Amino acid sequence: MDAIDVIVTKRERGTLSREQIDWVVGAYTRGEVAEEQMSALAMAILLNGMDRGEIAGWTQAMIDSGERMDWSALDRPTADKHSTGGVGDKITLPLAPLVAACGAYVPQLSGRGLGHTGGTLDKLESIPGWRASLSQEEMLGVLRTAGAVVCAAGGGLAPADRKLYSLRDVTGTVESIPLIASSIMSKKIAEGTGSLVLDVKVGSGAFMKTVERARELATTMVELGTDAGVRTVALLTAMDRPLGRAVGNALEVAESVEVLAGGGPADVVELTVRLAREMLAAAGVSGKDPEVALKDGSAMDAWRRMIIAQEGDPDALLPRAAETMVVTAPASGVLSRLDAYAVGLAAWRLGAGRARKEDPVSFGAGVTLHAKPGDLVRAGAPLLTLHADETARFDRALSALAGGYEIAPASDPTLLPLVIDRIA
Amino acid sequence: MDAIDVIVTKRERGTLSREQIDWVVGAYTRGEVAEEQMSALAMAILLNGMDRGEIAGWTQAMIDSGERMDWSALDRPTADKHSTGGVGDKITLPLAPLVAACGAYVPQLSGRGLGHTGGTLDKLESIPGWRASLSQEEMLGVLRTAGAVVCAAGGGLAPADRKLYSLRDVTGTVESIPLIASSIMSKKIAEGTGSLVLDVKVGSGAFMKTVERARELATTMVELGTDAGVRTVALLTAMDRPLGRAVGNALEVAESVEVLAGGGPADVVELTVRLAREMLAAAGVSGKDPEVALKDGSAMDAWRRMIIAQEGDPDALLPRAAETMVVTAPASGVLSRLDAYAVGLAAWRLGAGRARKEDPVSFGAGVTLHAKPGDLVRAGAPLLTLHADETARFDRALSALAGGYEIAPASDPTLLPLVIDRIA
Repeated sequence: MDAIDVIVTKRERGTLSREQIDWVVGAYTRGEVAEEQMSALAMAILLNGMDRGEIAGWTQAMIDSGERMDWSALDRPTADKHSTGGVGDKITLPLAPLVAACGAYVPQLSGRGLGHTGGTLDKLESIPGWRASLSQEEMLGVLRTAGAVVCAAGGGLAPADRKLYSLRDVTGTVESIPLIASSIMSKKIAEGTGSLVLDVKVGSGAFMKTVERARELATTMVELGTDAGVRTVALLTAMDRPLGRAVGNALEVAESVEVLAGGGPADVVELTVRLAREMLAAAGVSGKDPEVALKDGSAMDAWRRMIIAQEGDPDALLPRAAETMVVTAPASGVLSRLDAYAVGLAAWRLGAGRARKEDPVSFGAGVTLHAKPGDLVRAGAPLLTLHADETARFDRALSALAGGYEIAPASDPTLLPLVIDRIA
Repeated sequence: MDAIDVIVTKRERGTLSREQIDWVVGAYTRGEVAEEQMSALAMAILLNGMDRGEIAGWTQAMIDSGERMDWSALDRPTADKHSTGGVGDKITLPLAPLVAACGAYVPQLSGRGLGHTGGTLDKLESIPGWRASLSQEEMLGVLRTAGAVVCAAGGGLAPADRKLYSLRDVTGTVESIPLIASSIMSKKIAEGTGSLVLDVKVGSGAFMKTVERARELATTMVELGTDAGVRTVALLTAMDRPLGRAVGNALEVAESVEVLAGGGPADVVELTVRLAREMLAAAGVSGKDPEVALKDGSAMDAWRRMIIAQEGDPDALLPRAAETMVVTAPASGVLSRLDAYAVGLAAWRLGAGRARKEDPVSFGAGVTLHAKPGDLVRAGAPLLTLHADETARFDRALSALAGGYEIAPASDPTLLPLVIDRIA
């Protein structure tokens, strides 16, 4: 087998055989296929595509490059959720303990933010003491204690994907549905969950800008999960505006705790409950209703156990940014548009995100929303508050927001429905 | 400017701006754009193409990455030829001194063989003492003495092309007409020749397998040369069967000397004379007729001066392989097919070519043809002789030849005409 043969097969629009895929992914992981060879192959895959069988083979080869987790020692089914990433998307934080409180185990390996979208681990790390890195044994302990665990993926899980993801990031080969789908699903299948709900975001703040592309990605991932024996369902959900009213690490933790306390913004509550029901149904668990678990304190109890089991202090004060700046409404009317990407970019520039993997994030930085699209606003009233550790960051955040919102005399904003579609 | 922006522009079928091209080629040469980024870009170029303006810009950026030669100190016009490579294509050897004998200077930077096609420098190095590496000053000296010089390109000429060529070789991105054309033409334009004749080979033994692809490459290169002020003409010529009767380094030198002595195989003589006339016409030189110069010894004199000026001994015995093996005709009839690629592959496996750039070649190894397509052959009579330094090589050469020739009862073979088309 030879890397050039594999590259040329895909370049000429051929179908990669299972042997070619197993060999090239394995040899790349071992360093026998060079980075420049894999990047040429990734570009050929991006431009010429892969069929269902090739994507399944590619995903399996990435799983086979590392270890696979096993939760068969647990006495109840496992369920997980994966979001393709958005602005203000803190749903994992209330969702994982909520589903645990309703009777399924949630073993979630999560990631960090890069670019304008936040990362669940960065958010949880704003809780003093909380620790993201756990051994598989420690994960099992947290699961038994709290019913849910959210932690960083160890290096042994799908190492091929880890290597390929870094390569795609610098070679303009990220935006390939076969490569995105296999990257996500290889980690989720290797994670060993029995059922999986995918939250595929659509809109300016999401990776997939159109419903068509999002549907294609969702369908590909549902097929991959199903073929691998994981009960998989996908929802396409709105990311044309931010989720909730808080964007930024500690700000989103605080909002999540509000939801777990039975309050919080309507869209965050609605999506959390909807995803919880999907996860419980996929896991075949019909215990407590999620809406009840948010009201009766059992979801909050699970949250506290989960944070404490990972050495976090759920009662500690969260970090706050040193500086704030209020953006006021320039006119009276209806907030007809508040662009998710503009708000995400502003939060990133305020310090909530990182430009390079090795950069730190500011836990307190971000944006809070005083109005959501469709709300009436009054000229001069607060529209957004910006949070940053240095006032010097406000200018670039404001320029990110320029053109990112509109106030109309009295129009009904045309927004995507919160849940656009369901693919099973 | 950012490598990912450039890659994504081409990936999305956009047109690269002159600024993008200058930046990416320059930064790649300086090592600021990584190999894996350039290979992704090369694959995107291969699959999505470049327009005439982009190819011209790319070529110019590669020329600008290094030095440019200048022959204005010479008192007569310069002319060069470039072949895209074939099996038994030793034409440069008789052609360069022939054109010099007819009144134009020939400053040719040449290359080594890789794969099944031979390289002019490897052939000339089979002449004892001959030296391929010359400084520009030494080149000028040889030109003044002999009228023609054939030597290796120094590292200062189009270093971007040198780096990119090695990368394309291992990443399945060789077969792109814009990249092939800009690679060839950047070196030929930087070489400083005033006029250029391109011999674009077509057929199984050539890089371009079809007349259509060869015409596209030829047209692209003629446009590039013309736009850069080099009078450029291309011939499309046959490479469905080998050129001449000798394939292999020293074997081809011997055949070239036969041509310079007024003999040699008809196809080699015809193509040499045709190319010489094109070069002289492009250079605007109307001195001696090439057919006369082959008969009256003046081309041979130029050859001897050229070899001696580069420290070679034109009278030395050429290296011979230690072992030979005769392949006989399996039946009587007409040799209806003798596949160029099969013969080239056999010669390569006999030791005439190299698998990796750093491998040595065997000067004596190769194949001699006792019949050419269209010739009558008798069962049991010699068809080919294989030459190698070890008998162990014969088996693999024979398997390369299996199916590579056919003997028909009495048919007219369907061969490409020697000169298929002319593009000016």
